[in-house]
Amino acid sequence: MGTGETAVAIDVGGTAMKCALVAPDGTVLHGERHSTGRERGPAAVVDAIVDVAAGLVGTARDRGLDPRAVGIVVPGVVDEANGVAVYSSNIGWRDVPFVSLIGARTGLTTALGHDVRAGAVAEARLGAGAGSDNVLFVAIGTGIAAGHVLGGRTYPGAHGAPSELGHVQVRHDGPLCGCGRYGCLEALTSAAAVARRYREAGGDGIAAAEVVARAVAGEPRAAEVWAETVEILAEGMTTALRLLDPEVVVVGGGLAEAGDALFTPLAKGMEARRAFQAMPRLVSADLGDEAGCIGAALLALDRFHAEES
Amino acid sequence: MGTGETAVAIDVGGTAMKCALVAPDGTVLHGERHSTGRERGPAAVVDAIVDVAAGLVGTARDRGLDPRAVGIVVPGVVDEANGVAVYSSNIGWRDVPFVSLIGARTGLTTALGHDVRAGAVAEARLGAGAGSDNVLFVAIGTGIAAGHVLGGRTYPGAHGAPSELGHVQVRHDGPLCGCGRYGCLEALTSAAAVARRYREAGGDGIAAAEVVARAVAGEPRAAEVWAETVEILAEGMTTALRLLDPEVVVVGGGLAEAGDALFTPLAKGMEARRAFQAMPRLVSADLGDEAGCIGAALLALDRFHAEES
Repeated sequence: MGTGETAVAIDVGGTAMKCALVAPDGTVLHGERHSTGRERGPAAVVDAIVDVAAGLVGTARDRGLDPRAVGIVVPGVVDEANGVAVYSSNIGWRDVPFVSLIGARTGLTTALGHDVRAGAVAEARLGAGAGSDNVLFVAIGTGIAAGHVLGGRTYPGAHGAPSELGHVQVRHDGPLCGCGRYGCLEALTSAAAVARRYREAGGDGIAAAEVVARAVAGEPRAAEVWAETVEILAEGMTTALRLLDPEVVVVGGGLAEAGDALFTPLAKGMEARRAFQAMPRLVSADLGDEAGCIGAALLALDRFHAEES
Repeated sequence: MGTGETAVAIDVGGTAMKCALVAPDGTVLHGERHSTGRERGPAAVVDAIVDVAAGLVGTARDRGLDPRAVGIVVPGVVDEANGVAVYSSNIGWRDVPFVSLIGARTGLTTALGHDVRAGAVAEARLGAGAGSDNVLFVAIGTGIAAGHVLGGRTYPGAHGAPSELGHVQVRHDGPLCGCGRYGCLEALTSAAAVARRYREAGGDGIAAAEVVARAVAGEPRAAEVWAETVEILAEGMTTALRLLDPEVVVVGGGLAEAGDALFTPLAKGMEARRAFQAMPRLVSADLGDEAGCIGAALLALDRFHAEES
């Protein structure tokens, strides 16, 4: 590795693109944000992403860094092997060949990944899962998404949609989920679901973080909603233990900021349900909202070094 | 590979040990069965297994074959890396170092595996899953067990208990399972559970296969129990799709002998539930009750060739 080796990283979300220049050890050397601008339509979003990538390569060189590769991570269905963003309901694109578009514009090796699964790789290698070969990363935010990292690489699934813990059914007769099915973990325990369930219980329209704060403060309605949330999360996590038997479970996303109010009862709920299964190490994510960018950089440098060798 | 290269294979069950001499292509050259004799206690069972292994090595040589390695597969918790049978509630042993015991007695490379996961390897390489790198094998018999085979090797989990589909909770308020938890897939849809549920519905004490036969013949009570069974199985299988995204699902075990009466409604139920997930190829197991022995032989020859190279 030469001095100054850097990856250009772009983490595309529904509203903002987080961008960074990242060193091989995960250090963020430079960060910037751009609006995704999805109101202008998917074609304009794609053009903007390619422009931003080219701009970041220039910025890296201006700073005396050596940009070796570009990593871009996106939500939705992603064909990592072929470098194509297959579908995102959030942004509205279909079959965007980001690897060839960005590669042609920048002349650099480019890798495409899934945002949460790339964040999982970052947490597994450099964050809360470092040192383990078998890490399940679970992001609990507006939705619930996960990535299973084995030997530092994401388990890709046979059809590009693995580790969909948010859509595991936990209540046979549960509420309708955005996926069209009923009783999914996400439909009951995401941040959005916690806020909705608090309203349905007669509470006012506050965010999930506030529900947790009120639960901790002893408000009975909030305490009941939150206790039930954590019990159902423990059920979903136990299903993940049954099928995946991970060594470490790293929990991130907005709800993880609840800290002990989440982790203490969640660990207890999993312990009560695990039966013959071994309890994994249950830890809070380390990298915060930089995980996606750092993961994008790791994917980019992995590909660069694979092509070199 | 020399001509006559053979593995000695032993598949230890609660009542019988299935034994075979197996060629590298999975051909069974010789088969025999012995009683497990668990009524004599675990120490006597272990002694008998070691004797049977040594006897099979002699039989192979008498027939002009070249026994290169011994593979033994057992139920329960298995530490494959260290060659130790950790625990079997069925047979009653704890921490039996089969690899060193059989290796010392026979002088041959020995591999230890889990019975169902070894059968999964056999189905994935040589049976109904051949040609795919991502095969989930599900055995529905007295219990429900599974193995996930990636690139021809079983996914081992971090603590030796992966792919426990039988203990995924499908009914939050379901019946008690043998594992101590409630509403597990196995507690509702194993052959034993189907027979029990038919009795609970007012039917007589018949085996699950007969419940299926009566359902096919149009007996209303049997038809209702079986239809509900297949719906719940489809739910459990869909949870496996969510987390594992397999290319092929191979279903074996006694209940798979129901054939179309199982596979047609099961595929329909999974199709109705899969949402954004791709439907895997759903197929019936090919190798029948020889899968465990053939898998034991493959594990043995894998280890032999790994040690050679």
